[in-house]
Amino acid sequence: MYVAILAGGSGTRLWPLSRSKRPKQLLSLVTDRTLIQDTVQRIEPLVSPDRVLVVTEESHADEIMRQLPAIPKPNFVIEPTRRGTAPALGLASLVIASRDPETVMASLHSDAVITNPDELIRALKLAEQVAAGSDNLVTLGVKPTYPSTGMGYIEMGEPLPGLADGAVHRAVRFVEKPGPEVAQRYFESGVFYWNSGIFVWRVSVILELFRQLMPEVHRLLMGIKPYIGTPEEARVVAELYPRMQKETIDYGIMEKAPRVAIVPTELNWSDVGSWKELMEVCPPNQGTNLVRGTHLGLDTERTLVFATQKPVVTIGLRDMIIVDTGDALLVSTRERAQDVKKVVEQMEEDEELRKLL
Amino acid sequence: MYVAILAGGSGTRLWPLSRSKRPKQLLSLVTDRTLIQDTVQRIEPLVSPDRVLVVTEESHADEIMRQLPAIPKPNFVIEPTRRGTAPALGLASLVIASRDPETVMASLHSDAVITNPDELIRALKLAEQVAAGSDNLVTLGVKPTYPSTGMGYIEMGEPLPGLADGAVHRAVRFVEKPGPEVAQRYFESGVFYWNSGIFVWRVSVILELFRQLMPEVHRLLMGIKPYIGTPEEARVVAELYPRMQKETIDYGIMEKAPRVAIVPTELNWSDVGSWKELMEVCPPNQGTNLVRGTHLGLDTERTLVFATQKPVVTIGLRDMIIVDTGDALLVSTRERAQDVKKVVEQMEEDEELRKLL
Repeated sequence: MYVAILAGGSGTRLWPLSRSKRPKQLLSLVTDRTLIQDTVQRIEPLVSPDRVLVVTEESHADEIMRQLPAIPKPNFVIEPTRRGTAPALGLASLVIASRDPETVMASLHSDAVITNPDELIRALKLAEQVAAGSDNLVTLGVKPTYPSTGMGYIEMGEPLPGLADGAVHRAVRFVEKPGPEVAQRYFESGVFYWNSGIFVWRVSVILELFRQLMPEVHRLLMGIKPYIGTPEEARVVAELYPRMQKETIDYGIMEKAPRVAIVPTELNWSDVGSWKELMEVCPPNQGTNLVRGTHLGLDTERTLVFATQKPVVTIGLRDMIIVDTGDALLVSTRERAQDVKKVVEQMEEDEELRKLL
Repeated sequence: MYVAILAGGSGTRLWPLSRSKRPKQLLSLVTDRTLIQDTVQRIEPLVSPDRVLVVTEESHADEIMRQLPAIPKPNFVIEPTRRGTAPALGLASLVIASRDPETVMASLHSDAVITNPDELIRALKLAEQVAAGSDNLVTLGVKPTYPSTGMGYIEMGEPLPGLADGAVHRAVRFVEKPGPEVAQRYFESGVFYWNSGIFVWRVSVILELFRQLMPEVHRLLMGIKPYIGTPEEARVVAELYPRMQKETIDYGIMEKAPRVAIVPTELNWSDVGSWKELMEVCPPNQGTNLVRGTHLGLDTERTLVFATQKPVVTIGLRDMIIVDTGDALLVSTRERAQDVKKVVEQMEEDEELRKLL
């Protein structure tokens, strides 16, 4: 099996720690390693580094290569411009197919947190087995732990035959982030799983689906194909890739594909879309608080303290978020953490503060 | 009139801004000037700098001299050790008496905030008039704005005759910090005033009262007297001052003196014993918030942000205190701000954190 790691994202949802030039995947949030280093380490039991591809954009490529010294340089696939996950995975599939046209590949995001890696390995092995033995696209579904309105869902259908009962099911449909009532219904149903964005397929199968469902992207990929691995590759990719339709793999392929299977999992998984979500996926490490750095808390509960550069003292806090990066400080209630987005918008208007994005 | 400014205090009640080596009076809290600079500036309409004495201890003397360049060097009176306000004011009175034995002097703390200086000048002029024309010790009482349990009180008696009616009264008694019920009674009575620690007297009167009420301190002061202004002064002070009884002027003299008058004032005054008290005496300057530094607040109310070194973003806060000094960060609810004391005690136990006190 090959693994393609999508590392093109940039963003400021974890501002002030994440910046446009220092996106989430390059940060140490949970361990001493960065999220992308954790992502690579998690799959080590499954694939050797020469079978790991990393898809990223020019601006982060040097830093990512620095962080992942074990991965061979030719395995870094550079997107000249961001066209979404469909073209990115199309290109990755093409590169992998050039090495082994019938192999199975998994696609992972570089900036997710998973705290039970054994469950990931179990699920990926099962998905590999299904993808190798059928024409299914396989997705890993995450059993919801609460009725989230921030996540996409996948409805699980009949079990696939020929496998341990209930281990893999047909995926009936993908649904976008629901409202609170629908989320509650999904949560209680037992058959709706969160869409982790972790997919497994044979490269020949996904490329054929590109041909059927995104023919123009497929045509451009075929234009690139003869140059893969040649000195001309970068020039041709730079010419053809930006012409591809900007689209997610979910909308462009997964939702329309005829055969999609889901491996239900109990991954403790988060895409860490906000500081609040980080607290949900990471167990507290200082009483009920989640702390990185030196923290002296008097009567402080369920609070995130992220400050590696100097001691933080807190008194009388409940459900707060404190992030100190040396050049900026965020103090928010936990409930309002997603409003960092609004702050970032306001900061863009200010000449002085814009520098901190 | 002379003025003696008591600048010997050190303390960490405004930690992390105040430190043992950088006490409150040396900090810029309210204006761009430090509290001691504000104190001196407030009395400029009343006395020239050559009549302002500053009593402090060795460790802060250089910094205080640097901050107050207009005050002549011989006007800095150095306490070899801290013996409380009674010996400090005894020594200051002695120095002033050596220049003018019948002059009136006022004693002020260097670390209080007063935001209506005109009222201070009015009250000091009145107090000077009373002190010059009688043997009274005169104190400035602050009309309470709430039933404080953190302040000492003075009970006001009959008006003094021969002055505008009600302008000055006999002080009946000094009382220590009361409990909540007594504080409420005092607050409603209309005759209890906060003890500001601002006193006015003739130097001959206070020295005579030292003789009567603190005879041993007086004896040691008389031992110093012949050396005031001579090259031997520092040596003799260093020898005799540490032997004086450690005592406050309130307990040692004011509470026992036969003739004490009170000038009732409506000073907007605070001794800034905590970050909460700073918020009570300073009007908000950014919506309902009190801010020094760059602050972007989303839905943030009644919050103190003190951070001059980097931008602070807050979301969804109510009644919070945030103080960032570059080497330490405090985040507290407003209500719990006085518990900084407890934190400081805990920090003293920790080898690493102790350095930040």
